Amino acid sequence: MKRTERIGALIRILTDNPSKPFALRYFCDMFGCAKSSISEDIQAASQAISLTGTGYLETISGAKGGVMYVPDISDEECAALQEEFCERLKDSSRLLGGNFVYTSDIFYDHRIMGKLSRVFARIFRDCGADYVATVETKGIPLAYNVAWLLNLPLVIVRREANISEGSTISINYISGSYDRLQKMSMSKRSVKNGSKVLVIDDFMRGGGSVTGIAEMMNEFDSKIVGVGIAIVSTEPEKKKVSGYVNFVDLGTVDPENKVIEAYPNLDLFKRA
Amino acid sequence: MKRTERIGALIRILTDNPSKPFALRYFCDMFGCAKSSISEDIQAASQAISLTGTGYLETISGAKGGVMYVPDISDEECAALQEEFCERLKDSSRLLGGNFVYTSDIFYDHRIMGKLSRVFARIFRDCGADYVATVETKGIPLAYNVAWLLNLPLVIVRREANISEGSTISINYISGSYDRLQKMSMSKRSVKNGSKVLVIDDFMRGGGSVTGIAEMMNEFDSKIVGVGIAIVSTEPEKKKVSGYVNFVDLGTVDPENKVIEAYPNLDLFKRA
Repeated sequence: MKRTERIGALIRILTDNPSKPFALRYFCDMFGCAKSSISEDIQAASQAISLTGTGYLETISGAKGGVMYVPDISDEECAALQEEFCERLKDSSRLLGGNFVYTSDIFYDHRIMGKLSRVFARIFRDCGADYVATVETKGIPLAYNVAWLLNLPLVIVRREANISEGSTISINYISGSYDRLQKMSMSKRSVKNGSKVLVIDDFMRGGGSVTGIAEMMNEFDSKIVGVGIAIVSTEPEKKKVSGYVNFVDLGTVDPENKVIEAYPNLDLFKRA
Repeated sequence: MKRTERIGALIRILTDNPSKPFALRYFCDMFGCAKSSISEDIQAASQAISLTGTGYLETISGAKGGVMYVPDISDEECAALQEEFCERLKDSSRLLGGNFVYTSDIFYDHRIMGKLSRVFARIFRDCGADYVATVETKGIPLAYNVAWLLNLPLVIVRREANISEGSTISINYISGSYDRLQKMSMSKRSVKNGSKVLVIDDFMRGGGSVTGIAEMMNEFDSKIVGVGIAIVSTEPEKKKVSGYVNFVDLGTVDPENKVIEAYPNLDLFKRA
């Protein structure tokens, strides 16, 4: 096998399995090469990946030495994505009744979600989470993409208990913004007791859902170690949670004058 | 820039954007290279990707000449995945009340979903779909993954109309297996009239949901051009739909004797 082919195959395998450590031995056996050659190949592979701005390779030293792909995004690409995200949000044709803004097309767009996932993966890569959790429905593609990049299982909290989930734990909570009673339900099998959970969601107004998930996690003797939200409404100013990281802010939504305001969160990487 | 780095970067960019054609000019400008060099690099990149069994590069000739990554899976890897999938399904601890089988952990496992997506991408890559559609909730990660691999937008059909979806079209349909009246709802903005839709879902018993989606698509003057389902129950034998492709069959579910039967679909690639 040619060296370029080996390096190419290395890149393909490692980037297809983000945050997953591979022993050098694995590649030695696959390519029939000495460790020293593989180490050189890894250096070249790392350089090539870094050039694309999508991450880098991290080598783990010691007896169990290995290598893994760490997904990343540059400050510049992130800022450009925030800009694009805000521009799309501000399109007044998104205005729905009740000051709601249509966003499904954005959250079901794999190009945007792929990049946004790299933003959250960068922020939360060292948070020590065992699971990525989200509340159905719109945040699922994003949460799944982040779970893939961080090599973690996904957990989806349901609005209503579903028969295919087996025994569930359900809680009632008050939505943060409208003081409405809401319900949340999770399969008893979905999270091991004593786990750490990273919450990823599409939208937050008052913070009721996140408080609900926190309460739910208590039932599993588990706790939230990070909260990443794509869009956070500036209203109400007082949220039920703190310590979340939002990608953009949704400002005034004014159907009468057909205005939607949206701003990038400029402290994105500072808070982490 | 060294040749190995160029090839590595090519692989990274192309495989991060499956089914998306890139003009050769794009890479010429990025790397400051002549078209002839890029063409050679693409050949080497294609060879390296093929070695990993995850797909290949396809070159598009003509004035608009370019290259794209086509995701794929080998017959052997697919058979191994079916085997693993069935083994996991047959675990009797999955038995729930009412002959239901717990599968959320499988459908929220990105390793399995990543591979299963390549199976459906291989089968449906030429079906001409404009969208990938699924019904919430459990099939969303799979459908999103397939949508990414085929470079198509995702559409999620809701069980209940949601205020953040704006005006919706709702239909009532009879579930195929239990003759229960069910509801389905979709945002009017989510699909353009006259579209072709690939349906991807986690589970089918009688085929009621797929019939429901077909009826829904009628409302959008759109039609289904492919149906891929991960698990199809052998009971009832008579389904409301035909022409679907299932990954595995779920046979007898017998809680009394703690038995779950599951079989790979051996005609997987023949039907396509």
